[in-house]
Amino acid sequence: MERLTIIDIAKLCGVGVTTVSRAINNHPDINEETKAMVMKVIKENHYVPNNSARNLKRSDSKTIAVLIKGISNPFFSPMIKVFEKEIQRKKYSFILQRVDENQDEIEVAIELEKEKRLKGIVFLGGLFSHSQEKLQQLTVPFVLSTIGMTEEIDLSDYSSVSVDDFNESLKIVDYLCDLGHQKIAVITASEDDVSIGKLRYEGYKKALSDHGIAYNERLVRRMKEDIDSYSMENGYAVTKELLESGEEFTAIFTLSDSMAIGACKAIFEAGKRVPEDYSVAGYDGLDISFYYNPSITTIKQPVVEIAEATIKILFDLINKKVNHAHQIFPAELIVRESTRSIL
Amino acid sequence: MERLTIIDIAKLCGVGVTTVSRAINNHPDINEETKAMVMKVIKENHYVPNNSARNLKRSDSKTIAVLIKGISNPFFSPMIKVFEKEIQRKKYSFILQRVDENQDEIEVAIELEKEKRLKGIVFLGGLFSHSQEKLQQLTVPFVLSTIGMTEEIDLSDYSSVSVDDFNESLKIVDYLCDLGHQKIAVITASEDDVSIGKLRYEGYKKALSDHGIAYNERLVRRMKEDIDSYSMENGYAVTKELLESGEEFTAIFTLSDSMAIGACKAIFEAGKRVPEDYSVAGYDGLDISFYYNPSITTIKQPVVEIAEATIKILFDLINKKVNHAHQIFPAELIVRESTRSIL
Repeated sequence: MERLTIIDIAKLCGVGVTTVSRAINNHPDINEETKAMVMKVIKENHYVPNNSARNLKRSDSKTIAVLIKGISNPFFSPMIKVFEKEIQRKKYSFILQRVDENQDEIEVAIELEKEKRLKGIVFLGGLFSHSQEKLQQLTVPFVLSTIGMTEEIDLSDYSSVSVDDFNESLKIVDYLCDLGHQKIAVITASEDDVSIGKLRYEGYKKALSDHGIAYNERLVRRMKEDIDSYSMENGYAVTKELLESGEEFTAIFTLSDSMAIGACKAIFEAGKRVPEDYSVAGYDGLDISFYYNPSITTIKQPVVEIAEATIKILFDLINKKVNHAHQIFPAELIVRESTRSIL
Repeated sequence: MERLTIIDIAKLCGVGVTTVSRAINNHPDINEETKAMVMKVIKENHYVPNNSARNLKRSDSKTIAVLIKGISNPFFSPMIKVFEKEIQRKKYSFILQRVDENQDEIEVAIELEKEKRLKGIVFLGGLFSHSQEKLQQLTVPFVLSTIGMTEEIDLSDYSSVSVDDFNESLKIVDYLCDLGHQKIAVITASEDDVSIGKLRYEGYKKALSDHGIAYNERLVRRMKEDIDSYSMENGYAVTKELLESGEEFTAIFTLSDSMAIGACKAIFEAGKRVPEDYSVAGYDGLDISFYYNPSITTIKQPVVEIAEATIKILFDLINKKVNHAHQIFPAELIVRESTRSIL
């Protein structure tokens, strides 16, 4: 069982972890009132900072933390199982730490490092828009797993495992074009998304251009910001609007399987069929894409292999077998019932 | 009045929380017009961001832990969101603790109590087969949420929130009987399950007996032990076997929506239709039961209300307004496309 961390104290105080750290370490850049408040919370909660005697007992503890953005996303469920199993097999203990959508994962990681004497970190999911300087604040090995990098960072400064989102997306849209579709709608991320969403969207555009198909921005639809991103509900709402707009299309590509299912539902409710009236293609290869009716044509990410490689690289880093590693897995285009040729 | 959260502000603005956060923190990736709008809403609603002086009052904060069995079960996702929101609204901090299938949740709770100086505990999911003596080792208030009790424990020794699994199951099978079905298969839990699975199965048997339908044990199928319980995969494997056995049936009731979806898939693969050839009924009311094709007739558990009541009872216990409380919510039979009358 883990004791109270600096992150918990920061939440209790309603301040950032840096502020708590400054209070503890008598840093000059903190006002006295805040500092007094933080120290009061620390005392009341019997929090023991990491430099205390109590922590010495734990000095040989070997812990790996997995920091996850989007814990309820079914895409991560099989990965978490692999992480847990592989980390326990190595006789390390395993912490799963949720990170909120708008929380800074590097800050969370830096504090966890101190508190738990981590041996390694896996960052799972979400965007990752941190500078090189910020990454270098991490003092233990870490691996980015299925995360899009938004900054131009030297590859020797980090390790990563993922699929090639641009090319996999290109592959499935290319397939739709080969089936004769010219009017292909897309449900993509918001315009300020600069990560996985952007890469998949760029793949869509490249496929159209490869086939000499003119880009029609009225077929480019954005997920709604007030609905969970990449969810069935979001795909449903966006497709409903698209259908009601009267804009013609014969196929729709959504950046996730969940949105593809929402798209199908909207199409059924409009009295239309999949794939007879509209072809629908997703992305991810969730179990439900197989069980859905019609089954969904998708890009299947090898999630188990990605998770296993993530842990392997992490332990290679810990054991200094490598300095950094980047592994890109091929994903598989799985053609199922939701798409058809219109040639 | 409770303090507004960033989520409330986001809703009022019609944007995501990330956008609100960016406006507050002067992040460059937000356009000026949106930022001005967000700041206006913040001012009008007197919203005080987290790191402000107003938060200093929270120095006496405390912690509530939610211990969950089956973190990847989509049934719990909306509940976790409610727990997090309601606990933060009460100015307590929130810990989500996974418990493994074969871990003893009371032992985990006792350790957490010491480590985190908890003020209260929610046990979520799974069976709960502990003695009265063991329960009494817990020194802080706790509530069992959507958990089946397997021991005969005095109701004054604990608090709980759930639906009436026996009667809700009876309700949906009774509905199938009313549609004229006499040969109703069931996918139920293993024979040694003495909790929710047993209650739902007893409801099935009672409905048949109420309608004077003879019990046929060849239509009673058990989930496979080597596959995740209550999963799509389990429903698929069991239904496939049932279909191959040649045993006649016109309807199948599965103890979860996920298994109902697996059952549909097995039926489609056998070249049959739902509901024309077989009616399929599930249980839970997951989002996917609405999005599936055909949409699934189910018992919809009021998960948000259950989660809210769980937290309300927990705080009533903490504030000594009650000594114990048991709340049973009505669930709703939702008739959708997967079932039909054969009269």
